[in-house]
Amino acid sequence: MLTLKGKSVFPGITIGPLALFHRNTISTAQRPIQDAEAEVARFQDARKVAIEQLKDLYEKALEKVGEEQAAVFEVHQMMLDDDDYIDSIEGQIRDEMLNAEAAVDRTAQQFAEMFRSMDDAYMQARAADVLDISRRVEQQLCGGPGVDFSKYDHVIIAADDLAPSETLQLDTDKILGFVTSAGSTNSHTAILARTLGIAAVVSTDTPLHTDVDGMMAIIDGLTGTVYINPDEETLQAMEAKQREEADRKRRLEEVRGAASETKDGRSVKIFANIGNPGNIPQVLDNDAEGIGLFRSEFLYLENSDYPTEDQQFEAYKKTAEALGGKTVVIRTLDIGADKQVDYFQLDKEENPAMGMRAIRICLTRPELFKTQLRALLRASAFGKIAIMFPMIISVDEVKQCKAILAGVRAELDAEGVAYDKDMEVGIMVETPAAAIMSDELAKEVDFFSIGSNDLTQYTLAIDRQQTKLDAFFDAHHPAVLRLIQQTVENGHKAGIWVGICGELGADLTLTEAFLRMGVDELSVSPPLVLPLREKVRSLDLRK
Amino acid sequence: MLTLKGKSVFPGITIGPLALFHRNTISTAQRPIQDAEAEVARFQDARKVAIEQLKDLYEKALEKVGEEQAAVFEVHQMMLDDDDYIDSIEGQIRDEMLNAEAAVDRTAQQFAEMFRSMDDAYMQARAADVLDISRRVEQQLCGGPGVDFSKYDHVIIAADDLAPSETLQLDTDKILGFVTSAGSTNSHTAILARTLGIAAVVSTDTPLHTDVDGMMAIIDGLTGTVYINPDEETLQAMEAKQREEADRKRRLEEVRGAASETKDGRSVKIFANIGNPGNIPQVLDNDAEGIGLFRSEFLYLENSDYPTEDQQFEAYKKTAEALGGKTVVIRTLDIGADKQVDYFQLDKEENPAMGMRAIRICLTRPELFKTQLRALLRASAFGKIAIMFPMIISVDEVKQCKAILAGVRAELDAEGVAYDKDMEVGIMVETPAAAIMSDELAKEVDFFSIGSNDLTQYTLAIDRQQTKLDAFFDAHHPAVLRLIQQTVENGHKAGIWVGICGELGADLTLTEAFLRMGVDELSVSPPLVLPLREKVRSLDLRK
Repeated sequence: MLTLKGKSVFPGITIGPLALFHRNTISTAQRPIQDAEAEVARFQDARKVAIEQLKDLYEKALEKVGEEQAAVFEVHQMMLDDDDYIDSIEGQIRDEMLNAEAAVDRTAQQFAEMFRSMDDAYMQARAADVLDISRRVEQQLCGGPGVDFSKYDHVIIAADDLAPSETLQLDTDKILGFVTSAGSTNSHTAILARTLGIAAVVSTDTPLHTDVDGMMAIIDGLTGTVYINPDEETLQAMEAKQREEADRKRRLEEVRGAASETKDGRSVKIFANIGNPGNIPQVLDNDAEGIGLFRSEFLYLENSDYPTEDQQFEAYKKTAEALGGKTVVIRTLDIGADKQVDYFQLDKEENPAMGMRAIRICLTRPELFKTQLRALLRASAFGKIAIMFPMIISVDEVKQCKAILAGVRAELDAEGVAYDKDMEVGIMVETPAAAIMSDELAKEVDFFSIGSNDLTQYTLAIDRQQTKLDAFFDAHHPAVLRLIQQTVENGHKAGIWVGICGELGADLTLTEAFLRMGVDELSVSPPLVLPLREKVRSLDLRK
Repeated sequence: MLTLKGKSVFPGITIGPLALFHRNTISTAQRPIQDAEAEVARFQDARKVAIEQLKDLYEKALEKVGEEQAAVFEVHQMMLDDDDYIDSIEGQIRDEMLNAEAAVDRTAQQFAEMFRSMDDAYMQARAADVLDISRRVEQQLCGGPGVDFSKYDHVIIAADDLAPSETLQLDTDKILGFVTSAGSTNSHTAILARTLGIAAVVSTDTPLHTDVDGMMAIIDGLTGTVYINPDEETLQAMEAKQREEADRKRRLEEVRGAASETKDGRSVKIFANIGNPGNIPQVLDNDAEGIGLFRSEFLYLENSDYPTEDQQFEAYKKTAEALGGKTVVIRTLDIGADKQVDYFQLDKEENPAMGMRAIRICLTRPELFKTQLRALLRASAFGKIAIMFPMIISVDEVKQCKAILAGVRAELDAEGVAYDKDMEVGIMVETPAAAIMSDELAKEVDFFSIGSNDLTQYTLAIDRQQTKLDAFFDAHHPAVLRLIQQTVENGHKAGIWVGICGELGADLTLTEAFLRMGVDELSVSPPLVLPLREKVRSLDLRK
């Protein structure tokens, strides 16, 4: 039995086989081969797996974001079936005794060059597609990334850490838990685990290798311990603990449908944070009273080009309708920093967390921003959408955002397109500047949502992903709590509501303090809604 | 005539020939040569230039930081004269027809390996030296970095931007000004220009190439304009402007020796910021009342290994003695972020400005910290030294620093070594957390020095080096001014003095506001001391 200690990001207990997240490097270097037909067969196998993957992706995209966005995956399947493409690759393998990786790469470059040289914008755009499908085949030839689900239906994923784009590729229904050697409790793996409500331990400092594939493991998310190849005694103890957890979950059922209210009648709204419309079932299952943070960047992260207005509209509309009149706060694009998207072609920055990101990109590229605002406004006719702007530092920025929004409204009015004229507009308070200027900012907006993760990292000048600074990091730093209090007070003075949508909102040791400060809303990962409500109902602020 | 617009960092006017800062890449790749003797001659030429450079560096180091630290450059000269080393390189050139770069590199690796394998710590440490001298020769073989002063005694340096280590290499006596295409007004080039009091325009967005070498240029630091190859009319206009500037400077002489006091009798201390003891003449020439920020990291940046306690002691003692009883506030090591030193072997970070830097390194590696504190305390016997800790975010960190300092004092007491028992201990207030917690922090220290550059970048979450964010950056952001005011108020409540040592302190448009806030000290680049005093003396706070 191997025992690892790390940081728990969700207090569940899970038992199951481990599967390593493979991340093989793609090498398309030329090397001589012995048997051309065997190499052609390797190419064909890889091509077929790639087509299967695209079919899966098509189905998932259809469900999550609608037909228009899914269509690209159908086009990609067709391209992989194209005879010219296949002939070119097989020809190079047979005629030049070239390895499949090099043949695919060379063909990809040739086809891309050909597309680029065409006098037709549509065909030129196909260059990116042919490179994309070829990369998928090359990836497969080099061992394939991702997780091998062939042996087990449900697995605990082991990885060093996962990038946002990698977490998006995972089939979340098949994941029992996560164990990562690196990553912080705010890493994307951690955020995904919390959203799904599955046990996860990060930062174990012990990289795992392929030899653990298929081994039985236990994650104890209550203590941050992982047992690999557990002995019988540990297994039994953990199974007992798992039953206790199940009991606790059943007790939580008692607060389902109940009011989020303290014993002395102080009520607070408990909303959920989500990353894409695929998380709607978790929101509803966990009885959240609304969505306090919808991270709209998933549409950009999943795509290989800017999502269209209609693609965005469909996703927002679907979410608004599913919530049936409950509030859905959608945060406008927060790309940049640790969320990089190739086609944005952002410069490499020395300190990306303090760089060109979020609202700074939107105000620098207003056409991009307008497309999202149009989609949001159009979707607002189908439910109760509110929008909020991230990374605000000044009143002037808010005024710029509102001016662009007013322009979009005027456009929709002129076109006779329906939207919610009373839609609330708020900002994230996630920079020290915004918290300090919250008196002035409150006069400009309908609500504040405090992003405690970023607010903490800037206030302490500590990168929240840098685990080596844990000795200096204090999640409950009094400076941050003072800024939160100041923001709530200033919001209330101006008559607007103030919520918290960062990780602190889910910290049950702070719930009482936040309620005493007067916080109106707490938005947390879906599986934490009921535990938080239970906590609120146990409090008595008269004491 | 080519006209460039950029940002001025010092309001001087200068006229002179341009010289491009060359930064050739070192390539030690093997390539065949035709004539071995010509190649040996190339090596010998490069070796001799390297020895000349080391002689220069020895002289400069002797003057700036004393004999002990200078000694390394003597050792390096001797190593370059070593027969075994020379024979090995020439042998490889002759026997294997190898190019000089590759022969030097291979010999360097072989000698380093040999030193490393020795059973003697002193000899093992020579591995770094042989690599260092070899790099110097390779650099020379590849065209040499730096500026060609052979044609002109005094030049305006053109560059994209300069790294801290590059600015340290420059012979500052020969520089008339700087023009950089990149870099912000807070870049190291800008800081150097301000310290030296020479005209400089940064961020012109127009990279210059070797064809400008030797061309006449004018920098108008009042408007941020650079004229290359100026026409006669421009030249005459600028010469007239230069005379006016000289007149203005003469008028400034009237406040030399005068009190830094407003018309209504409110006085403020005007101190100077310096980067190394070589700047002492500028401090004295400009009649500064003390040194408010001595950036101690120069000793680390200039060295190829950790400076010893005695090396540091000499530098601090020299400065304290030169100031003859005036206060010298020395900031402890602020390495990390954009100031990288190879031998610290810091990890590459995603956001180094919010990473392992300054006091975080010192508290993580207390032996390093103790060495500096011992040097500082010993030097305190020779003048009026105060020390301050950078990047503080919590009371706990200050307590840790003070505990280590108390340990060092006890050591010195036990050894009977003299030091100033009343030496003041303060902190930089340069994180939002420190400003917000300044009420608590004030109880722990003797003074605050507000680092407005970092405080601004963290408060606004904008990397101060990222010029693309200028549209969002506000140097006078009200959130920063509120934090400064709060810090001053909290400091005074606890009875301690509060200064500003960031760029804002030199901003004459804010001087009145700072005096009204109650700021006790402003520490600025030496050439800005007299203009600031003139400004203070022109104010009347009764109005």
